[in-house]
Amino acid sequence: MTKTTIHRVTVHFGDCDPAGIVFFPNFSRWMDQSSLAFFMACGVPPWRELLKQRGIVGTPLLEIHTKFMKPATYGETIEVHTSIEHWAAKTFRHRHVIRRGDDILCEGTETRAFVIKDPADPDRIKAIPIPEDIKALCL
Amino acid sequence: MTKTTIHRVTVHFGDCDPAGIVFFPNFSRWMDQSSLAFFMACGVPPWRELLKQRGIVGTPLLEIHTKFMKPATYGETIEVHTSIEHWAAKTFRHRHVIRRGDDILCEGTETRAFVIKDPADPDRIKAIPIPEDIKALCL
Amino acid sequence: MTKTTIHRVTVHFGDCDPAGIVFFPNFSRWMDQSSLAFFMACGVPPWRELLKQRGIVGTPLLEIHTKFMKPATYGETIEVHTSIEHWAAKTFRHRHVIRRGDDILCEGTETRAFVIKDPADPDRIKAIPIPEDIKALCL
Amino acid sequence: MTKTTIHRVTVHFGDCDPAGIVFFPNFSRWMDQSSLAFFMACGVPPWRELLKQRGIVGTPLLEIHTKFMKPATYGETIEVHTSIEHWAAKTFRHRHVIRRGDDILCEGTETRAFVIKDPADPDRIKAIPIPEDIKALCL
Repeated sequence: MTKTTIHRVTVHFGDCDPAGIVFFPNFSRWMDQSSLAFFMACGVPPWRELLKQRGIVGTPLLEIHTKFMKPATYGETIEVHTSIEHWAAKTFRHRHVIRRGDDILCEGTETRAFVIKDPADPDRIKAIPIPEDIKALCL
Repeated sequence: MTKTTIHRVTVHFGDCDPAGIVFFPNFSRWMDQSSLAFFMACGVPPWRELLKQRGIVGTPLLEIHTKFMKPATYGETIEVHTSIEHWAAKTFRHRHVIRRGDDILCEGTETRAFVIKDPADPDRIKAIPIPEDIKALCL
Repeated sequence: MTKTTIHRVTVHFGDCDPAGIVFFPNFSRWMDQSSLAFFMACGVPPWRELLKQRGIVGTPLLEIHTKFMKPATYGETIEVHTSIEHWAAKTFRHRHVIRRGDDILCEGTETRAFVIKDPADPDRIKAIPIPEDIKALCL
Repeated sequence: MTKTTIHRVTVHFGDCDPAGIVFFPNFSRWMDQSSLAFFMACGVPPWRELLKQRGIVGTPLLEIHTKFMKPATYGETIEVHTSIEHWAAKTFRHRHVIRRGDDILCEGTETRAFVIKDPADPDRIKAIPIPEDIKALCL
């Protein structure tokens, strides 16, 4: 396992749909925010710097899986608790648990890879082995 | 199985992130659009009408699972192919396949329920058995 | 003039476009968040409560005018400084200044009205005179 | 004046807020889509190509001004009618009128500039004189 970081989000009116509750892709958006916040909190430079230094464009998603248990609405503050629960050769899997106080609103995983611009075709990206120094920062 | 409907989407500049590719929660948004378009194409009235007639607020999500295979960028037209692959007592599961020509960009499932405002607490919603007349329209 | 409130926003990766800078409608979204935060900070109940108590649905926009001076990018924290600079019979005008440290990134106005559901047609909304008690809370 | 192009948009559930109407920054998003669609319809290559060929990153916004007359809701199809009403040395001004059938829902202007990456600092952008060949394509 790794460190667990907490990303706080205030739910806004425009995040909610005509049913008055959070429009669900926003939960994916907040998990994505929390993924980057996790790496930043671990001391990894922002993608913009990694791109210049090492050609790393970011950590695009390969797979997501989310269960929604309780809705949220505007005016509420929620927390995304984020860790990395699995490392493979070229991928890793985040676990995100979104809480409002003691309630779990939703939880899910994201499988991601570190990618660079493909040297053979700069319009494409390709996955690289998990950078060991970045992994070490997260443990 | 059910009918399969196709929801066409043009990818716009603002749908893409600093890596130049679609920011992934937009794929969830387009699957959600395609879910409603599926019901409309099957002859189900919009939620707004179902709310007035039968108290049905919509079909919020219980679970999503998506695999991302290829990225898309702005200027491209993509298609969301949507069906219902499973009906349970109070839930159903959509299958969405997003294509660009012959390429599959991503595919996933959404588990949803039909919900009404909870008579005991109008600030809450509760799932109802799948309405048989709506199911019949989808087959 | 009125109170001035400050709404802090962290800019995220998904808020930025392929040019690497904030996709501009997000600035409008953050001004909208700051408008509601302004009323909440002044002690006005959330729209959801006002709807139940007085039928007030919210404060939809009639007009916006925004100048963009400097871009922002992800990882930055910005502040929306919000006040009300003018009250008319049925409308009011917000001023929002978005700052990053000493830099002004953009500034603009929003003209809004308090609206209720139209008693003659609940699918429509209609503006009401500025509620004096709400105005008093903002001064 | 220039050509006028029409960009059609279907309003979706997730574009609407708890009041059941389009969350207004989406109108700005659709005007932005229509700006790019205008240039594409005039025969201008996508920004991605202009970046490679001529270093042009896009046409970021300097100023927007929008009036909202009527709301829209999900299930409706609306049209953004877009032209360029003014050309200055380094800026131009779009006019966008959003219609639903005979109704005008909102109208506004966008002032934009063509920008390149600043040769002195590639993290910054700078405006260039309106490219005459691009202007000629729009008339």
